Amino acid sequence: MHNVLIGQSGGPTAVINASLYGAVSEAIKSKEVDRVYGMINGIEGFLEGAVLNFTKFSEGNENDIEKLKTTPASFLGSCRYKLPEDLNDEVYGRLFKEFKNMDIKTVIYIGGNDSMDTVAKLSAYAEKISSAISFIGVPKTIDNDLVCTDHTPGFGSTAKYVATAVREVILDAGVYTKPVVTIIELMGRHAGWVTASSALARTGYDSNPMLIYLPESSFSVEKFLEDVKKALKVQNSVVVCISEGIADGEGKFICEYGSEAAVDGFGHKMLTGGGKVLEELVKKEIGCKSRSIEFNLPQRCSAVLASARDIEEAAEAGRFGIKSGLEGKSGCMVAFERENKSDYRISLKLVDVSSVCNREKKFPDEWIISEGTDISQEFINYALPLIQGESCVPFEKGLPQYMRPAYKL
Amino acid sequence: MHNVLIGQSGGPTAVINASLYGAVSEAIKSKEVDRVYGMINGIEGFLEGAVLNFTKFSEGNENDIEKLKTTPASFLGSCRYKLPEDLNDEVYGRLFKEFKNMDIKTVIYIGGNDSMDTVAKLSAYAEKISSAISFIGVPKTIDNDLVCTDHTPGFGSTAKYVATAVREVILDAGVYTKPVVTIIELMGRHAGWVTASSALARTGYDSNPMLIYLPESSFSVEKFLEDVKKALKVQNSVVVCISEGIADGEGKFICEYGSEAAVDGFGHKMLTGGGKVLEELVKKEIGCKSRSIEFNLPQRCSAVLASARDIEEAAEAGRFGIKSGLEGKSGCMVAFERENKSDYRISLKLVDVSSVCNREKKFPDEWIISEGTDISQEFINYALPLIQGESCVPFEKGLPQYMRPAYKL
Repeated sequence: MHNVLIGQSGGPTAVINASLYGAVSEAIKSKEVDRVYGMINGIEGFLEGAVLNFTKFSEGNENDIEKLKTTPASFLGSCRYKLPEDLNDEVYGRLFKEFKNMDIKTVIYIGGNDSMDTVAKLSAYAEKISSAISFIGVPKTIDNDLVCTDHTPGFGSTAKYVATAVREVILDAGVYTKPVVTIIELMGRHAGWVTASSALARTGYDSNPMLIYLPESSFSVEKFLEDVKKALKVQNSVVVCISEGIADGEGKFICEYGSEAAVDGFGHKMLTGGGKVLEELVKKEIGCKSRSIEFNLPQRCSAVLASARDIEEAAEAGRFGIKSGLEGKSGCMVAFERENKSDYRISLKLVDVSSVCNREKKFPDEWIISEGTDISQEFINYALPLIQGESCVPFEKGLPQYMRPAYKL
Repeated sequence: MHNVLIGQSGGPTAVINASLYGAVSEAIKSKEVDRVYGMINGIEGFLEGAVLNFTKFSEGNENDIEKLKTTPASFLGSCRYKLPEDLNDEVYGRLFKEFKNMDIKTVIYIGGNDSMDTVAKLSAYAEKISSAISFIGVPKTIDNDLVCTDHTPGFGSTAKYVATAVREVILDAGVYTKPVVTIIELMGRHAGWVTASSALARTGYDSNPMLIYLPESSFSVEKFLEDVKKALKVQNSVVVCISEGIADGEGKFICEYGSEAAVDGFGHKMLTGGGKVLEELVKKEIGCKSRSIEFNLPQRCSAVLASARDIEEAAEAGRFGIKSGLEGKSGCMVAFERENKSDYRISLKLVDVSSVCNREKKFPDEWIISEGTDISQEFINYALPLIQGESCVPFEKGLPQYMRPAYKL
């Protein structure tokens, strides 16, 4: 008997449920697998006994599971629970006792950096106690900041959303003749991948977004004002894209110029308002109209603008995760390798999860050009294949039909 | 010889170009019309000689004009220019001299409240000097606040965007088990139509958005905190939708609790940050996690989430405007009348433009229920027909293909 347990963790994306779909459908159709369970609210919910029996749930319900591919956010719910560093902590014993009770042989955990830390610890504990359970991580993060993989499922959809919405805002912001500076604040605490995607919004006739600032370059308020003044000489409507995590040379976040920064459960600084700070600055120092827009949650949960390729790759990563688990692999994360750069082709592989967790893949310095205000063609070539194809969310009576989450069943 | 002149004015919407499409295509195909001109940047740009010759532009270019139907923002550019109250002002003489030079017989102005003021003044001046030029207003505004019409093109698309994006945010905000209050701030200075549309996001299994506050009800911070506390007893994730224009009993905007409010060119208060003020309040007074999201420009310029019915109706309003102008009608605005409430059917008519301008259609008091925290079924019945059908923006290489604006040609 081989039972499978699947969980989701960390912040939601538009395609984390596509990975869940891939894993669940592969496991259900496998003859080696008896039952497929889902952790409700990740490892934290599992510890409290919150489990969904997918095998039962999907009986005569295949259409429903198919709908996971176009349902945003985490169907199983999520958590931000960090397992103790000390493998002697009683929590590990409790978890493995429950795995044994449920006859679990493969555990798939879909998530980002912190979730890979969970996979690494669980597989280390399994090794310690000589357990044969396989632990496989399936990557997701809109931030694209996981190492050892060409890119991360979730990023392509956010990049497509950002490129589209920035293109629309450029049109909206350009209709008047008076000078206006529109500042769009995008997600990315330490890595600029999402913000860089705004470069995809450009058309041949408009150089907006004229300025793009990533957290990888140190940000100078004085230099910014000079950049904006120069841009306003070229055209009346200047659109600027900034990452939420831009910081000055001393490491002080620009949003902190305006207000206090809060800290989330993991000790990460919670950022908001860098765009607002710069908007006020432009009004005061340049004296023209200015507006700031924070794309906020919609950039990570817009299923309507998800990339079809991202959805397919996310599902494939889930399937590969199950196959690897059934083969007895453990302590690994599914990763993408780009085989061919000119004619996009991807293969899947496994990488050691401990070499992934607690590290961040920064945006490459050599792709940041024009004194930290623009992105090179190399990035465009890298990102364009990831946003190909349109999602086909089912609409009924004018509204998108998403799956009812497991934690609401 | 009958030449036609068409302009767009005020804030952009997802379908104002669909009205332009309807007007231009109808005028081009009419045997009575010789040439079709567009004002670039509205009446203000026209005064400076900025004109597009549509007849020339569309020669062998029909596909291009078709693309207007799915291109957001104002293809012709816009302005916020208010004509003088005094009809003796020299600007009227200048305008009518130019109309005569160009042999204009019909002028179509697509816009909201302030644009209808322009139509009213131009037709009053025409009457004064016994000019035979027809001035017809074609309505647009996401705010749905024009009187004498069942609804306004632009509103249906924004309502569809809001319903979809709120539904996605509800999923995203619900994945954790810890209590969280998500506040979504929507457009609408004085009228709550856009914010009310968030009620369309509801599903059978989740009562979010649990609280909806419109500017038509006076907002009490104390009552709000009580409402939120009560909602948190029902479920962990509470989504609240507020209008940017919510104000307390003394008429002070909630955003002013946090910072100064600025004033735009028309003397309207420019609002921002009511959601942020309430987010901080929830953190301080209730002590749980809170997040605010301002949907901002994307709610009015998302072409991908435009309503197909809204697009069709906007185009039809443009066509009807041209036909009315050719029939010699003047001083009118095209309006919608709902013929049948159970089986949605609309007819077009003309209303006196002077009875439209400088007035606002508020959200009906009787549709605001639950002590100002919810919207009645009557509104759902009213709004649902307006969001039917999905837009089909052409995508190329993963990106939406929009028309290059006239002011960028």
